[in-house]
Amino acid sequence: MYKIEKLQSGVCAAEGFYANGVPGGLKGENALDMAFIYSDELCDIAAKFTTNKMQAAPIRHFKEKGSFQTNFVLVNSKNANAMTGKAGIEDIKEILSALKRRFYEIKEPVMSSTGVIGVRLPKKKLIDGLQKFDLRTKKPHNAAKAIMTTDTFTKETAYKITLQNGSSFHIGAMAKGAGMINPAMATMLCFITTDADIPLDDMQKALDLLTPLTFNAISVDGDTSTNDTVMLLANKKSGAYDKEAFVEVLGKVMLELAKMMVKDGEGATKLVTYHVTGAANDEEAQKVAKALSDSLLVKTALYGEDPNWGRIASTVGASGAEAYEEKLTICFDDVCVYRAGKNLFDAATEAEAAKVMQKEEFTIHCDLGIAAGSFTAYGCDLGYEYVKINADYRT
Amino acid sequence: MYKIEKLQSGVCAAEGFYANGVPGGLKGENALDMAFIYSDELCDIAAKFTTNKMQAAPIRHFKEKGSFQTNFVLVNSKNANAMTGKAGIEDIKEILSALKRRFYEIKEPVMSSTGVIGVRLPKKKLIDGLQKFDLRTKKPHNAAKAIMTTDTFTKETAYKITLQNGSSFHIGAMAKGAGMINPAMATMLCFITTDADIPLDDMQKALDLLTPLTFNAISVDGDTSTNDTVMLLANKKSGAYDKEAFVEVLGKVMLELAKMMVKDGEGATKLVTYHVTGAANDEEAQKVAKALSDSLLVKTALYGEDPNWGRIASTVGASGAEAYEEKLTICFDDVCVYRAGKNLFDAATEAEAAKVMQKEEFTIHCDLGIAAGSFTAYGCDLGYEYVKINADYRT
Repeated sequence: MYKIEKLQSGVCAAEGFYANGVPGGLKGENALDMAFIYSDELCDIAAKFTTNKMQAAPIRHFKEKGSFQTNFVLVNSKNANAMTGKAGIEDIKEILSALKRRFYEIKEPVMSSTGVIGVRLPKKKLIDGLQKFDLRTKKPHNAAKAIMTTDTFTKETAYKITLQNGSSFHIGAMAKGAGMINPAMATMLCFITTDADIPLDDMQKALDLLTPLTFNAISVDGDTSTNDTVMLLANKKSGAYDKEAFVEVLGKVMLELAKMMVKDGEGATKLVTYHVTGAANDEEAQKVAKALSDSLLVKTALYGEDPNWGRIASTVGASGAEAYEEKLTICFDDVCVYRAGKNLFDAATEAEAAKVMQKEEFTIHCDLGIAAGSFTAYGCDLGYEYVKINADYRT
Repeated sequence: MYKIEKLQSGVCAAEGFYANGVPGGLKGENALDMAFIYSDELCDIAAKFTTNKMQAAPIRHFKEKGSFQTNFVLVNSKNANAMTGKAGIEDIKEILSALKRRFYEIKEPVMSSTGVIGVRLPKKKLIDGLQKFDLRTKKPHNAAKAIMTTDTFTKETAYKITLQNGSSFHIGAMAKGAGMINPAMATMLCFITTDADIPLDDMQKALDLLTPLTFNAISVDGDTSTNDTVMLLANKKSGAYDKEAFVEVLGKVMLELAKMMVKDGEGATKLVTYHVTGAANDEEAQKVAKALSDSLLVKTALYGEDPNWGRIASTVGASGAEAYEEKLTICFDDVCVYRAGKNLFDAATEAEAAKVMQKEEFTIHCDLGIAAGSFTAYGCDLGYEYVKINADYRT
């Protein structure tokens, strides 16, 4: 048993963590575009990176370092430092050297970038910009703002966890990513800080366990960007830890941020939960849930608020998972339009289902009627605004 | 050696084939929505069907029949007869019985449907409509029109093939499908007729060989509809046949129709050829070509006429195929923007590449620089019109 308490202090919720965002001139005058997270104790670090073969320079740089501890993460938006070859890694080294010259207390800093692909970092701007950092600042909201690209709101959350013996620790996080994950904008970043006294081994295991259920369960256009990164920093300062509590709250933190990304989907107006049950196994359920959340035809039907269950049935059938027409059930929240092969879609049901679809958040539930496999994915609709943002993005 | 000659007579090009389209009242008054193809000799038949698990009733009915010969195909648009269970198959049987009562010369007829999913066929309308057929009519263009759904133009082609010994045969075809294949409209149908004296075994082999390179190489939103069907009917009446010539011309026919579907893509303004070379093998090249033609972000960049090569690189990286930043080359027609890891994208190159993208047809060439695997896929852009059509389709 433990108690959790919501906090407003984002990545600074955990003891010993500092953060801020400053304008480096990448986005244009005075817009925040450089962020840092600093810990006054060295941190163990665990991370999950994109599976894209064109991994961006910051990820390659991180991996080159092997195993290490750090007390500093530098993040910039507007430029992904992806497809920049060896020069892109050299740029990072130069920037981080300048950083260490400026602040002697910084050890083994890492860098993370998001923005346009294929353009070298504006090194001078970044080196000038980092002079403005004050490591003892706690402005997590500014940091969360500085890492945004097409995001329309900052994405932060934090909790205090009090264990039964009275000891407590914190988990705080910030993320960026606008739902319909956009590889050109390279793309989702998430930084999680904690003062829990968590063993390094548990850190990576927790990320491995929770990423598929959270950041990998949101609609990503079937694409994975060059820069996707989830980083967990633990400075252990609280001395407190409980594995079960940590995993539960970390999962909550990651799911909250993942849902915020979907809600902030480019042009999105709806957050839809795809709840798939009755599949042959969990993997099969995942196939179906992902096919639904990725389907252009389902997404446009959501935008049109049209309870077009035929598109859902067809997408289930095309997902590759075992499925049978006569066993399938499809419901919009509590309104079932097709049950175990029986079409329930009359005028009254259609009207009820259409009403569900007018909501900003609702669930599409597909039961495959085969066995007990289940998975939940999250997606949004696709409307004109998405086309507008993505047809015009670079210019 | 053989000579080929383009004809305008669609599915009636081959000797002994008749076709027409009539208004059955499914689409609304006087719109053609029922088509037939009739052969005055029994035909061998080969077919490829959707891999969707929710196969529509016409496909289930066809498969139930086992191996058979036929001289008649009935096609309706506006209703897919999909997700209609056993009743959907009974409906077909009833309609085909009425057909046989009306025309004693019809043997083992088959039916094909396209349109909305999950609604029973309007049996009475169809049975009334088929009374209007005159089996001795050759109006292939009307037939091609009657099978359209959101298609904006009919899709037909035909060739006469003259062999070196002076004998000749014909291949004619019609298809429907509006590029961004839409499972709710259930979806692509293609009927090919020939008087070639082709062995049954060669028929299926030819379809198996050519479908992946044509209909399965066009952008389909990653989806496969419940009704996708390619059917080849051979009445052997010409007595002439040459395997090489047949396969070459059939491939030409299928590719022409496939490209027409892309060109008629819902809201599409561009036909883009994705030519992938230098992959580890052909399957890997196919993965990349399909990932590119399916990518929402590439499609919207095409619509925006933005030579955003970063999205292409990222999509290559996310495709799952072996790929390396330092070996990749990306060109828009002859304009290379990134070559073997070197970024060539300056203002002049960008202007040239943007000019290529303003064309109605162009090629995006990705060389992976690994080995000799290659594949070519075809896709279109995604604009506001696509959202409009698909958000509003059913209503």
